[in-house]
Amino acid sequence: MALKARLRQHYKYFLNNFQTRWSDNDQYGHVNNAIYYHYYDTIINQYLTTKCSLVPTKSTSIGLCVHSSSDYFKPVEFPNTLDLALAVTKLGKSSVTYEIGVFESGKDEVCVVGKFVHVFVDSEGRRPVGIQGDIRRGLEELLVDHERGNGAKL
Amino acid sequence: MALKARLRQHYKYFLNNFQTRWSDNDQYGHVNNAIYYHYYDTIINQYLTTKCSLVPTKSTSIGLCVHSSSDYFKPVEFPNTLDLALAVTKLGKSSVTYEIGVFESGKDEVCVVGKFVHVFVDSEGRRPVGIQGDIRRGLEELLVDHERGNGAKL
Amino acid sequence: MALKARLRQHYKYFLNNFQTRWSDNDQYGHVNNAIYYHYYDTIINQYLTTKCSLVPTKSTSIGLCVHSSSDYFKPVEFPNTLDLALAVTKLGKSSVTYEIGVFESGKDEVCVVGKFVHVFVDSEGRRPVGIQGDIRRGLEELLVDHERGNGAKL
Amino acid sequence: MALKARLRQHYKYFLNNFQTRWSDNDQYGHVNNAIYYHYYDTIINQYLTTKCSLVPTKSTSIGLCVHSSSDYFKPVEFPNTLDLALAVTKLGKSSVTYEIGVFESGKDEVCVVGKFVHVFVDSEGRRPVGIQGDIRRGLEELLVDHERGNGAKL
Repeated sequence: MALKARLRQHYKYFLNNFQTRWSDNDQYGHVNNAIYYHYYDTIINQYLTTKCSLVPTKSTSIGLCVHSSSDYFKPVEFPNTLDLALAVTKLGKSSVTYEIGVFESGKDEVCVVGKFVHVFVDSEGRRPVGIQGDIRRGLEELLVDHERGNGAKL
Repeated sequence: MALKARLRQHYKYFLNNFQTRWSDNDQYGHVNNAIYYHYYDTIINQYLTTKCSLVPTKSTSIGLCVHSSSDYFKPVEFPNTLDLALAVTKLGKSSVTYEIGVFESGKDEVCVVGKFVHVFVDSEGRRPVGIQGDIRRGLEELLVDHERGNGAKL
Repeated sequence: MALKARLRQHYKYFLNNFQTRWSDNDQYGHVNNAIYYHYYDTIINQYLTTKCSLVPTKSTSIGLCVHSSSDYFKPVEFPNTLDLALAVTKLGKSSVTYEIGVFESGKDEVCVVGKFVHVFVDSEGRRPVGIQGDIRRGLEELLVDHERGNGAKL
Repeated sequence: MALKARLRQHYKYFLNNFQTRWSDNDQYGHVNNAIYYHYYDTIINQYLTTKCSLVPTKSTSIGLCVHSSSDYFKPVEFPNTLDLALAVTKLGKSSVTYEIGVFESGKDEVCVVGKFVHVFVDSEGRRPVGIQGDIRRGLEELLVDHERGNGAKL
């Protein structure tokens, strides 16, 4: 499948040498399927807060997850470190679709590929609002067109 | 969307009055998107261990997750309790597709619907094996055909 | 040790049939040591929110943890359910010391005993404030004097 | 208090630039008290597996936690990175007491100090066994005597 062939070059932003934790491993001795979603939230929000001026407790516009999915190709294990990779595959008026690739540090093969959809809402009423300013600019920088070719910008 | 119209009657097994935890809530004051996947793993494995004789640390055949997804319709919040609901929508030779519905206790509206695919493998070599015995019997009991109608058995 | 001899009668508030989760178990096949602290936060905040009018995102006075500890006597395991038990062992002007007992449902022996100290602070400046109103009343109801005898009120 | 004055020089092993995660923060906008125990387990087991030949799923002798505690001096927050610091303060026949310091990357002030006691047991019967070989050698390298002075080896 196409997702299984993902390489680092398909992504635009990286969180390298990301330390797995003891409790990421489940009884089967590998990182539990649910834990990857914590990784996705981490790279996305680390990007939004450090590169796009999001302040979760103060911004008037915040991103809420309305859909997420994962395809698991190869297990990873504590205590190994990972390279998390992020791209934006679709950017609409108020929603954004991210793709996240999970790689073991120093290896080329993708282990897990995730999809994650944020709808931006006003932090009080939680109704959809347009994505604007630093956040739109930051998300545009991560845009790729995987259907037209590897990591090619739209 | 069809998933948004799910009711308890679309499911076959329940874990009711499931207590949310303080740390399930994130900075936005609701259960974090990743936490639902922990709920899925819990109801699925609680069923497999208590009803289908799975012993995670000893069984020669175990289920590994190869795909999962969620659609989030309505937030839930600690300290509320939830009713988790489980069905099997597809049962193959070595793989099984579950659907999980997350309801607030005492309410009809579904909040989140999850999909989760297990491939059964031998616990040592981790190669796919046929689903057999108590596990197959237990999964057959949860089979529904959502395309043909509400919770109708195949 | 005295803590190892704790019984349900040493506590004043209970969260019974508390469902453990798949990911509570670590590679050693039992609930991981860190997970118990999530249980403590859950029973304490479930009590504060449902019995003492605390609203974490709105109350002007909130409890922050300044110290916690656990003594682990006996492992527990997913998918078993637990009975969490809570008492207040010390109630000062702005701080409160809780004790939490973790029991397996249907068994008398205590598995883990936790200690947890909250200092109440104003939610904005995060400076200590006096514990008042519904919260003080609620905490007083859980007061025990373990040094003078089993669960005897001060 | 003495613990509040801890510096990096009181510790012997470090996991620097440790990435906090989105879900480490709770509703109060800082890393939740329970999460630090996941950090402790991570630095301890990362040391035991990468420096002392521990293989959690195969070693005949494993470390189980019998006591843990934390003193919280200063909150830390996602998305900041941390420096985790580890020392051994007591090494007995079958038990070891660790101290963990949590620092924000680039800052001198200690934020949280943890204590964690492992008893080594045989992985099957789970009865205490002597700490030997690579594990004893590795733990001896981390020994400090905080009562006699900063990080002075015994």
